[in-house]
Amino acid sequence: MDRDILDFTKSISFDKRLAPYDIEGSIAYAQMLGKCKIISKKEKDLLVKGLRSLKERIGRIPLENNEDIHTAVINLLRKEIGKTADKLHLGRSRNDQVVLDLRLYCKDEVKQVIEKIKKLQRSLWERAKDWRGLTIPFYTHLKNAQFILFAHQFLAYIGMLERDKGRLGDVFKRMDIMPLGSGAGRGSGLPLDRFYLAKKLNFSQVSENSLDSVSDRDFVIEFLSTLAILSMHLSRISEDFILFCSDEFGFIEGDDSHFTGSSILPHKKNPDPLELIRGYTGKMYGNLISVLVMMKGLPLSYNRDMQLDKPPLFDSLDIIKDSLNILEKIVSKLKVNKENLKRASSNEFIFATDIAEFLVTQGYSWQEAHNLTGKLVLESIRKKKPLKEMSDKELKKIIPELTQELILDFLDPLKSVRRIKTYGGSGPESVENQIKHWGKILR
Amino acid sequence: MDRDILDFTKSISFDKRLAPYDIEGSIAYAQMLGKCKIISKKEKDLLVKGLRSLKERIGRIPLENNEDIHTAVINLLRKEIGKTADKLHLGRSRNDQVVLDLRLYCKDEVKQVIEKIKKLQRSLWERAKDWRGLTIPFYTHLKNAQFILFAHQFLAYIGMLERDKGRLGDVFKRMDIMPLGSGAGRGSGLPLDRFYLAKKLNFSQVSENSLDSVSDRDFVIEFLSTLAILSMHLSRISEDFILFCSDEFGFIEGDDSHFTGSSILPHKKNPDPLELIRGYTGKMYGNLISVLVMMKGLPLSYNRDMQLDKPPLFDSLDIIKDSLNILEKIVSKLKVNKENLKRASSNEFIFATDIAEFLVTQGYSWQEAHNLTGKLVLESIRKKKPLKEMSDKELKKIIPELTQELILDFLDPLKSVRRIKTYGGSGPESVENQIKHWGKILR
Amino acid sequence: MDRDILDFTKSISFDKRLAPYDIEGSIAYAQMLGKCKIISKKEKDLLVKGLRSLKERIGRIPLENNEDIHTAVINLLRKEIGKTADKLHLGRSRNDQVVLDLRLYCKDEVKQVIEKIKKLQRSLWERAKDWRGLTIPFYTHLKNAQFILFAHQFLAYIGMLERDKGRLGDVFKRMDIMPLGSGAGRGSGLPLDRFYLAKKLNFSQVSENSLDSVSDRDFVIEFLSTLAILSMHLSRISEDFILFCSDEFGFIEGDDSHFTGSSILPHKKNPDPLELIRGYTGKMYGNLISVLVMMKGLPLSYNRDMQLDKPPLFDSLDIIKDSLNILEKIVSKLKVNKENLKRASSNEFIFATDIAEFLVTQGYSWQEAHNLTGKLVLESIRKKKPLKEMSDKELKKIIPELTQELILDFLDPLKSVRRIKTYGGSGPESVENQIKHWGKILR
Amino acid sequence: MDRDILDFTKSISFDKRLAPYDIEGSIAYAQMLGKCKIISKKEKDLLVKGLRSLKERIGRIPLENNEDIHTAVINLLRKEIGKTADKLHLGRSRNDQVVLDLRLYCKDEVKQVIEKIKKLQRSLWERAKDWRGLTIPFYTHLKNAQFILFAHQFLAYIGMLERDKGRLGDVFKRMDIMPLGSGAGRGSGLPLDRFYLAKKLNFSQVSENSLDSVSDRDFVIEFLSTLAILSMHLSRISEDFILFCSDEFGFIEGDDSHFTGSSILPHKKNPDPLELIRGYTGKMYGNLISVLVMMKGLPLSYNRDMQLDKPPLFDSLDIIKDSLNILEKIVSKLKVNKENLKRASSNEFIFATDIAEFLVTQGYSWQEAHNLTGKLVLESIRKKKPLKEMSDKELKKIIPELTQELILDFLDPLKSVRRIKTYGGSGPESVENQIKHWGKILR
Repeated sequence: MDRDILDFTKSISFDKRLAPYDIEGSIAYAQMLGKCKIISKKEKDLLVKGLRSLKERIGRIPLENNEDIHTAVINLLRKEIGKTADKLHLGRSRNDQVVLDLRLYCKDEVKQVIEKIKKLQRSLWERAKDWRGLTIPFYTHLKNAQFILFAHQFLAYIGMLERDKGRLGDVFKRMDIMPLGSGAGRGSGLPLDRFYLAKKLNFSQVSENSLDSVSDRDFVIEFLSTLAILSMHLSRISEDFILFCSDEFGFIEGDDSHFTGSSILPHKKNPDPLELIRGYTGKMYGNLISVLVMMKGLPLSYNRDMQLDKPPLFDSLDIIKDSLNILEKIVSKLKVNKENLKRASSNEFIFATDIAEFLVTQGYSWQEAHNLTGKLVLESIRKKKPLKEMSDKELKKIIPELTQELILDFLDPLKSVRRIKTYGGSGPESVENQIKHWGKILR
Repeated sequence: MDRDILDFTKSISFDKRLAPYDIEGSIAYAQMLGKCKIISKKEKDLLVKGLRSLKERIGRIPLENNEDIHTAVINLLRKEIGKTADKLHLGRSRNDQVVLDLRLYCKDEVKQVIEKIKKLQRSLWERAKDWRGLTIPFYTHLKNAQFILFAHQFLAYIGMLERDKGRLGDVFKRMDIMPLGSGAGRGSGLPLDRFYLAKKLNFSQVSENSLDSVSDRDFVIEFLSTLAILSMHLSRISEDFILFCSDEFGFIEGDDSHFTGSSILPHKKNPDPLELIRGYTGKMYGNLISVLVMMKGLPLSYNRDMQLDKPPLFDSLDIIKDSLNILEKIVSKLKVNKENLKRASSNEFIFATDIAEFLVTQGYSWQEAHNLTGKLVLESIRKKKPLKEMSDKELKKIIPELTQELILDFLDPLKSVRRIKTYGGSGPESVENQIKHWGKILR
Repeated sequence: MDRDILDFTKSISFDKRLAPYDIEGSIAYAQMLGKCKIISKKEKDLLVKGLRSLKERIGRIPLENNEDIHTAVINLLRKEIGKTADKLHLGRSRNDQVVLDLRLYCKDEVKQVIEKIKKLQRSLWERAKDWRGLTIPFYTHLKNAQFILFAHQFLAYIGMLERDKGRLGDVFKRMDIMPLGSGAGRGSGLPLDRFYLAKKLNFSQVSENSLDSVSDRDFVIEFLSTLAILSMHLSRISEDFILFCSDEFGFIEGDDSHFTGSSILPHKKNPDPLELIRGYTGKMYGNLISVLVMMKGLPLSYNRDMQLDKPPLFDSLDIIKDSLNILEKIVSKLKVNKENLKRASSNEFIFATDIAEFLVTQGYSWQEAHNLTGKLVLESIRKKKPLKEMSDKELKKIIPELTQELILDFLDPLKSVRRIKTYGGSGPESVENQIKHWGKILR
Repeated sequence: MDRDILDFTKSISFDKRLAPYDIEGSIAYAQMLGKCKIISKKEKDLLVKGLRSLKERIGRIPLENNEDIHTAVINLLRKEIGKTADKLHLGRSRNDQVVLDLRLYCKDEVKQVIEKIKKLQRSLWERAKDWRGLTIPFYTHLKNAQFILFAHQFLAYIGMLERDKGRLGDVFKRMDIMPLGSGAGRGSGLPLDRFYLAKKLNFSQVSENSLDSVSDRDFVIEFLSTLAILSMHLSRISEDFILFCSDEFGFIEGDDSHFTGSSILPHKKNPDPLELIRGYTGKMYGNLISVLVMMKGLPLSYNRDMQLDKPPLFDSLDIIKDSLNILEKIVSKLKVNKENLKRASSNEFIFATDIAEFLVTQGYSWQEAHNLTGKLVLESIRKKKPLKEMSDKELKKIIPELTQELILDFLDPLKSVRRIKTYGGSGPESVENQIKHWGKILR
């Protein structure tokens, strides 16, 4: 075999990550071969013992000389127990073996990602609790819309992440299918007990068609897609935080040990880790696309192209786990700048919608209420007189129902949010309920 | 407003597709406003009646003059029932309204796509039944691997598509959440009964956070991702069929009314529709990417960018429904060319793996069995003598267990598949079971 | 032919856009056939006359009944001049014809896009000229870095767009190759004069290999890629403007007729068109990906998949031309808010880098200069005393070279930018030179 | 700084690849500082000497402890020559330094990729020369179209690759711009001679706007896009070869040392490396998308996200250079199976188009010629009598111009290609010309 081509086709540099799963699968396979009398009890015991010993040590053995992880494991086992090792070839092909390894790996990873999401949610929840009394404008079109409780925004993030967990749970179901026994693609002439294998390896189902079993990488793509959406969520949270950290917004501040400072401006802190989390979204999308493209138009069954499903998957998992860790750290020490939040509430016109809503409850039609409030705002601008300085007379000339007292009431952000009544809204009661709800779930 | 900018920001050219859902949502909203005494019973009745009448007619009304479908519906309603129409603005914003419309639409579409998949599965199942007695090589690396029953390949396709249905079912759960009552993003000061709305509109849940409700487009992306995977499956099936239709393979043939002929070669039939199905995968991936990119790094809550979630979604749904229809048609009339299938079984060396497997059952180690079979094949090539013509003596010199009779047995594709014993494999029993299994599911 | 399949494979709904190019190509083809004596002069004259007449009218003729634009043109021509129309089939195939049409179309579109970029550059240049005397912080990590002339940022945009023009010019070269005469893929037995065709159709080259000619869609992908990068630039400019329009930044303001107002807050203007320009980047990327994916792994030569190159191309061109138009409009009427720009210069610490740079010119090492400036900043924070209020004594205690007068000098944004000396930097001289430079180019 | 966050933000694991370029840039920078009297001659000499010594050794020094390559180089230099090393900070920022390094790196890589393409073209050209006398069907819709010279297909590949070289040359122009002296984004107060730097570093231009200089990553995206198209070409060539290697086509064969064999079937050779080349297209597209997405909507100027431009770029370059190497190797030893090529010419109906073309030269209209040929083909099928066995009488009954002798002539693939007359077509003369043309270019 040509040296360069061998190097080009080798997968050991990345699939060595599957080593523990490959051994785990082989142990179960040996046990099944024994149970089905395809090999003797003695052979089975020898195989299992050798594999278990190998599992302990494999992390410390250089594997680079092998073509792939499956060959590496057999070669090492042969060194340990002799040619009985080759009995593992009976009825098994690399085509079904690699799918098994990958499914075992993915199932583990799903659980880890879910745990990390949960940890991040908990930190967000802590902030929501801390800042339940603070108000902040929420933004549409990056313009101030109306006031909300700051907690409400963090609760929104928690909800976004909860959907990610739901998706991961669904992907898990389609990973949880045992492919071994499909051979190269048509099954085997040996009486392999695939249900026994599934039980041993903790799978809830056995695959139903051998050809499909070795051709299917849906679960990889679905995983990558789920992680891409999760990453999009992290990019949005990061964007919000980057904005809120800017000199112009100034609502929040990261910890000194988290944000990159400058030797000149010790207090100047750049939100570098947040920018990287946002930037990594590109890679996450790219990894998804790369496997989708690789699978496009491939005839059944196994094609060597499919070996390339692993690097993007491994990369996306490394990125997302790091990103979740880092974001959790940052959120856990996020500080709020109350002064700047207060300054943000000085824009009287944010409250115009509140006034219009009030007028509607006073019997005005929606259109009238909007028109009248618009007039009031224009008057304030024209006269260069803030609303709160307008006299009862001036107010009533435009809207008879208004008084200065009422206006002062309207211009209070906390009173503004207290008027919210809907389930899931940013009213104090709803926010308290949300906090309680998540408190139970994230316990 | 500048004319060009108005045209640039208008969404009516595509969101008019949401008209029935927008009206349906408005009817429920009017009923809720009435039920909560926010409007009078008379107003409620007027609104509902007007909307119902509009629903009948809207398909025939040109809507292009309006900015978007929500404005179009209100404008038409105002023409019909006067300014009571504006009561629908109470507590509702376009931000939550558009999400409602889109969720209603998506839920409907999921069901339609599932139905179409099912229909295609049924046609594939018919072919599997018809061709259960035929053998065909299965392919790894596009090289002949071993023989399978032709039915087995079609059953693989059915299984692939079944996963698509599973994914669609999961996406549906996350679509089935009622957002109305979130207003522009913080809820409303009016006592809107969101649970009543959910019931009326047949949603199983109410959204938990108003800010998230108007910012979330996960369900669109998830839908597009699911459709992208489905489309990848269709591209693989198409690729198989295109190969099988080629002059060199010649295993199957499309119906004259399905494949494009030539005026010179009436029997020459190009698999154009299959190529288009394969090619559309590009668009399906592109549409997925376009919404992922659009959402990347967007701050909460609503941004106008999000309007652009619709064209890719609508496009992908049109493509996938067409592709499923067309592929179903083609499969339903697919013909097999038995002569060419027979020719494909003349390659004796496909059976080498069978011989090796037989030797293993005779007590040879896996490695010995492989080596001996390799030798036999080489001998046949060296002597330019087909295996089936080798005498007992010639055979036994290499492998004592072999006889000419045995070899002739091995060279029979049907006998080859009959040796397969595993669950989910391509053995006749397993294939029969699969056919029965799907017969029940696809009934 | 099955009705549904016919509809599925038809391309007339989108390729009708190529009508004028198809006719133009056919006119040249007829002339060449005449010149090469493949048809008679009379036939040639009849064809040319018929095609010219058709070119006038085709915009008003419904074409939807035809399969594609090529058939449509021939059918209409046959109606006009009888069966001489079919002479156009001599030596020509739809495979080479569609590439010709597409190349003609693309060449035209490149020119249009370049014109629109130029127009946008001119508007940006007007703003640069108007605002050359204003200062603004530039941003790294969305944090204030140092002061620049506002003009410098607009000149950066102009430079970005100039690269786009360069790329378009390069793509043009690879479009400018005449494919006709390649037939279905192997050329023709007729003595077609391809160089004559190139001359007539204003191509600078003739394609060198017939098989490649009908298989190649590089120019479409390259065009889409160039447009995707251009769109990325527009997304960055839009993002800057959206930020600068936010209540918190408040540096610039869009025209009332450009930004979407609210009935309540007539002065509240949402930058919707900018958000859409930013959001469309998703579609632009998606369109690029869709054609890349479609072409992946296609065997030579023509496959029907390739028909799907057109919808993404047309869509991207529509989007980019609209986006350029709209952005140009917005820029042409952009207003600056000088008060807010002034406020942005109140952050004394932005100037710290200036102080450090000054110290370096005074002989301090880079590290000392940074450390000392850092100390000064800390002292100001510790004492809650702005730099400009610190006495000479206080200043000199930390940095002997400093005086209050000097500090006041440093805290002047205009003086800050005047210290910049490098070519291409934001110093007034460099900015003037840039303005002059672009003034000449964009004339 | 938090350990995990430090690890997350570090770039040394990948940007160490830029080490030689970083040092090269620093040498030039030191020389320029000396030349401009910003540092003394002695300092300049010390810096240059230290950097040159470091350049020799850096490949053997572990760098992982540093944050990035720029810091690593300064730290190592400081160890070597003391704090004079910090003089390199004067007027320089990591923002402009990293762009310089990346531009130097990219320029080198472009040249390498072009060299590798050229080598592959040469091998393809050798095959074209060898196989100029052989005929093969060309394919549209993967169906036999007509016969071409096998060389013609290889010449098509050469032409595709030539366009890639053209694109790379164009990208090079936009890489060849010197950014140093842009500082963090606004230039510097020091009188840096940027033109001197450009000359020293072999750049043909100096960047025109400092803000754009540090914000621009167009050249990375453009490079990735160019490589993505190149990779698409390789995927198409690979697909052709995989098809041609299949048992059913069997036109060509890879070398034993290139294709993966089986222990059982020593002659069975799987085209694994070709499948990987095809599969890698996914990664190449993904890498392109990841940088496009990362840049979308980023405000000016530098954001930390932009650090993530490197891993996809490096990955794509590794993949493409490997793929070009491997494909060149394979092509250089490709064998043709003449027997199977002959078998492929037994399908008489491929020649039908030739007959129709002949009839047109005999004065038949295009439509008549097609109809008559169609009739002839049908008659042959109906009678189950090959064309070549039909008597003169039988032939003439349908087409008076035909004789058996003529038909035998038509059924000769070589004679078929000899009838091709067009420039760039697959006629022997055109093919010879193409071979000569490329022979000169690829010398």
